[in-house]
Amino acid sequence: MSREVLGLDAGAESLLAKAKLDGAETMWDRKDAMKASCGFGEKGICCKNCSMGPCRISPVAGKGAQKGICGATADTIVARNFARTVAAGTAAHSDHARDIAHVMHMADVNGNYKVKDVGKLMLLAKEWEIETEGKEVDEIAHALAEKALLEFGKPFGVLNFLSRAPKQRQKIWKDLKIEPRAIDREVTSIMHSTHIGCASDVDSILDMAMRTSLADGWGGSTIGTQFSDIMFGTPTASGTEANLGVIEENMVNILLHGHDPSFSEMIVLAAEDPEIMKLAKDSGAEGINLVGMCCTGNEVTMRHGVRIAGNFYQQEMAIITGAIEAVIVDVQCIFPALARLSDCYHTKFISTSPKAKIEGSTYIEFNEEHALDITKKIVTEAINNYKNRDRTKILIPQSKSKAMVGYSVETVIQKLDGVVNSQTDIFNTVKPLADVIYAGVLRGAAGIVGCNNPKVKHDDSHVTVMKELIKNDIIVVTTGCAAQAAAKAGLLTMEAKELCGRGLKEVCERVGIPPVLHMGSCVDISRILDIVSRVAIERGVDNSDLPVVGVAPEWMSEKAVAIGTYVVASGIDTFLGITPQVTGSARFVDMLTNTIEEKVGAKFFFEEDPTVCAAKILERIEEKRDRLGI
Amino acid sequence: MSREVLGLDAGAESLLAKAKLDGAETMWDRKDAMKASCGFGEKGICCKNCSMGPCRISPVAGKGAQKGICGATADTIVARNFARTVAAGTAAHSDHARDIAHVMHMADVNGNYKVKDVGKLMLLAKEWEIETEGKEVDEIAHALAEKALLEFGKPFGVLNFLSRAPKQRQKIWKDLKIEPRAIDREVTSIMHSTHIGCASDVDSILDMAMRTSLADGWGGSTIGTQFSDIMFGTPTASGTEANLGVIEENMVNILLHGHDPSFSEMIVLAAEDPEIMKLAKDSGAEGINLVGMCCTGNEVTMRHGVRIAGNFYQQEMAIITGAIEAVIVDVQCIFPALARLSDCYHTKFISTSPKAKIEGSTYIEFNEEHALDITKKIVTEAINNYKNRDRTKILIPQSKSKAMVGYSVETVIQKLDGVVNSQTDIFNTVKPLADVIYAGVLRGAAGIVGCNNPKVKHDDSHVTVMKELIKNDIIVVTTGCAAQAAAKAGLLTMEAKELCGRGLKEVCERVGIPPVLHMGSCVDISRILDIVSRVAIERGVDNSDLPVVGVAPEWMSEKAVAIGTYVVASGIDTFLGITPQVTGSARFVDMLTNTIEEKVGAKFFFEEDPTVCAAKILERIEEKRDRLGI
Repeated sequence: MSREVLGLDAGAESLLAKAKLDGAETMWDRKDAMKASCGFGEKGICCKNCSMGPCRISPVAGKGAQKGICGATADTIVARNFARTVAAGTAAHSDHARDIAHVMHMADVNGNYKVKDVGKLMLLAKEWEIETEGKEVDEIAHALAEKALLEFGKPFGVLNFLSRAPKQRQKIWKDLKIEPRAIDREVTSIMHSTHIGCASDVDSILDMAMRTSLADGWGGSTIGTQFSDIMFGTPTASGTEANLGVIEENMVNILLHGHDPSFSEMIVLAAEDPEIMKLAKDSGAEGINLVGMCCTGNEVTMRHGVRIAGNFYQQEMAIITGAIEAVIVDVQCIFPALARLSDCYHTKFISTSPKAKIEGSTYIEFNEEHALDITKKIVTEAINNYKNRDRTKILIPQSKSKAMVGYSVETVIQKLDGVVNSQTDIFNTVKPLADVIYAGVLRGAAGIVGCNNPKVKHDDSHVTVMKELIKNDIIVVTTGCAAQAAAKAGLLTMEAKELCGRGLKEVCERVGIPPVLHMGSCVDISRILDIVSRVAIERGVDNSDLPVVGVAPEWMSEKAVAIGTYVVASGIDTFLGITPQVTGSARFVDMLTNTIEEKVGAKFFFEEDPTVCAAKILERIEEKRDRLGI
Repeated sequence: MSREVLGLDAGAESLLAKAKLDGAETMWDRKDAMKASCGFGEKGICCKNCSMGPCRISPVAGKGAQKGICGATADTIVARNFARTVAAGTAAHSDHARDIAHVMHMADVNGNYKVKDVGKLMLLAKEWEIETEGKEVDEIAHALAEKALLEFGKPFGVLNFLSRAPKQRQKIWKDLKIEPRAIDREVTSIMHSTHIGCASDVDSILDMAMRTSLADGWGGSTIGTQFSDIMFGTPTASGTEANLGVIEENMVNILLHGHDPSFSEMIVLAAEDPEIMKLAKDSGAEGINLVGMCCTGNEVTMRHGVRIAGNFYQQEMAIITGAIEAVIVDVQCIFPALARLSDCYHTKFISTSPKAKIEGSTYIEFNEEHALDITKKIVTEAINNYKNRDRTKILIPQSKSKAMVGYSVETVIQKLDGVVNSQTDIFNTVKPLADVIYAGVLRGAAGIVGCNNPKVKHDDSHVTVMKELIKNDIIVVTTGCAAQAAAKAGLLTMEAKELCGRGLKEVCERVGIPPVLHMGSCVDISRILDIVSRVAIERGVDNSDLPVVGVAPEWMSEKAVAIGTYVVASGIDTFLGITPQVTGSARFVDMLTNTIEEKVGAKFFFEEDPTVCAAKILERIEEKRDRLGI
């Protein structure tokens, strides 16, 4: 396997060589076995939505089947597949948010789940018109939680959080009739409308996909973020480290992988329990070393500085080090392959969610009612496994990087407050950020997000785009696996200011922030929506007027498609480094990359070369500046 | 095209020959162009759930790719695809039911939508513990509608209608943790759990699929049926005719196609308006001839005796007659091809639902608030089109059959009351039915349902299975396109008793019913669940103890997969005449056709030969009788 494929991590090659010796299969083996991927599937022109088929449209216009048996054209099939992808992504984010809301509904000052950020609770209660006068914190939390839970299924009205967008944006949604109603309803609607014999008009399918995606961004994801902050604390800036080098040779290493903080927070608590810590020492280890991966890694690093073992494509590498006592997972982005891979080592692979039972894993069902008891049991399993390590099988790459994390919107604003002229300006706004962008000190801002994908050199696209942008005075905010790529590349440090253009460097120095800001997990892209909307509102413009972009250089999941769609529907151009499976319809491609702009003021760009992608971003940002006359 | 492929309808061949002359493309042309279907898709071993892929598993064990890039096996991929199919089907039925509930929420004694069956409203209000004392009918309807709308999204509890099942059945669901919560939530849950890196354990995926399907059967579909009955009237037995011969040469022919009675009921009303009728006469026609197709056809024939033009595969044939002024559609099972096909004739193809905009159609958006105005406008469009007929292009096959329709559970019970011994027994129960089954006069009952599918000879599987069963004293209830096949074949008549075994013939004579009972549209399979459960409760047993089966000889839609799954999960064996796309996993096939019985007391049978299928049904029914000791 060449570095060209493996990407930027120094340890990858030696770990894969070790895997071979250990008889362990990795995704690279499976990718080799897969050979060519299906051309119809890649182009999105395969339809399995009824059993008259499956039908495949010939990619050569005018030759072979140009329609499915029902008459669906390539345009329709591509659009329907795209819409279902958005529905699946929306479902994933939102079902996660539902769990957080249920946890808030259990908030108990004497229980496992306590309200951590009372201030944020009170602000949101006010925003949602919940009576707080003379009420206990828990009571308010329960009322808020119930209201949030109804966002998933209320029969009337539209989502509450839409009102956080600029007025101009709200009007666009209303006029297009794409204001999402209840979150689950939008998922169901898409599944219905893409059923055989329903919508074939691609324009309306794209509109419905946008509506559903907005139920993710302004519904599920915003609830996920806001309610997690209230229950587990709004992140504040702190230091951590990232990459496989954070795995410790003489500690009980527990890899936390998945997404839902209502689970991982309890693992953190369990691991801090004095009895559990003593158990770890008694087992001969120096202690417990919690490390994170994927979005769970982001959740716990944002709130506790838990160190980051890596991102999506390193989930197998971490196990191959031979030093992980337990991989503990809940939902999403977990290779089912980890079960068999763990069997090659002493590693326990513990799945915990009824939503995501994994064959071959040790299943210990997590249940919020007994959260701490269960997580203590799980951590104990890991500790008890320490003695089973085969020290001849351990290889921990030494590479790790320092990183600053924890940039919630509140933290960013607090940092900005440090540069407010207290004589003339007010505190607690994004005005300083708007000012530097309008002044041209910063040319713009980019949200760089998303996964890893073996179709491109790992982390390289993330890091290349980031470096190019900060060099050109574009400030970067990041979440998900992209944030972890940035962390490993040292971009989440004050020192990274040296890679920046003069304007951004000065901002970093004066405000005291790195040029790339870690804003959290993938649901926390809602923080990016929030901050962009605040800047727009501050300046009286719409999101689509601002020189800001979204970028997903290495995305792979259906969630990413939902995200890209709601970001565009929110007025922010989105650059995809992996071309989605839509190229079988030139018309749908044109809609996504061109005509959608007439509707929502933003569009998609597909560009697989990260350097070219960065150049296009710069060009687009300057266009937006020109239009704004700044 | 041979009769072998075209199926039973005499007119098919000549209409297809005419289509060729008219330059009109049909599904047979498209099927020919499609050539071989994709082997991976047919077997369900293709995964498009993330963009690392698409991945395809080699169907040859041990050779080629045996896992997706994430490590998902054929078992996992097949199970996930199956679950998503169930989710889509559930979404379709339920989203339809939501519309009916919204219409009930608009119930107005002075408006377009009035409560028709006040008795049924009051019964359901009592069942759902809605206060009725001193309240107006409309008020009660609104309260009931709100409660129903919350069934789609309530944050706590499980679906109300589950309590209609036998207690033993409810316990099985509870123990398996497959009681559906809110309907839309279950759809979202499946989309989440089948997202990359979630569930890979096939057992749990099947359980989740069952839970979602139950949200269809006992949620969306039951709401769809019950609320339609309340708003539009509970069907009663009446006569009608079926097949393309119901199209009239000298009338304005309007083909109603789709699913949602809140639309089609208003078309019926509009067509009965004296001014509209006069307009038709003024145009030179003898009047307006409404004819139905697919489930909308079933809805309006059940309640108004509107004649049936045909089933799913005849949607193109109807247009090719050249005598249809307008095809009026809402949602589901509408070929997008009808747009282009209509262009070959004078036919107006009018789509009406924002959920199902169809490219190339005339779009007149239906809106319940202005229901009658809009439907009058639509019917007027059809009338105005009468003058554009090209009489040289008209060919109406003469075949049509008489049929009895309208067998709601209430109607069946009312018929049974006719044979109750008023000295010893009570009225208004299914006891007489239970008695004849237990006595062996009837050997059992079969629900024969579902679509058409060009993979098998049209209508032949439906009719063959029905004839075999009634010959063997199995009473048949039917819905959907299967019911229309039965109607065309003359099986919905008293005369059909001559095709029956001695026991069934006697029942038909004494009770005064045909041997095959039309129970309505596909959502009305909930009527079949209802009647089976009533018989089980009457006898103190579970559904799975009874000698009853479900059969879908020619299914094609995702709805059918949802139906099959909830029927099995409700304890009723289900025979599929088209093998679902699961054969790439021998294990999942074994689960569906074997081990699922350990969980829910029923299983799937895949059997494409209708005669063999009937034989297997008889065998299974006798097994059940033996177990019951009857």
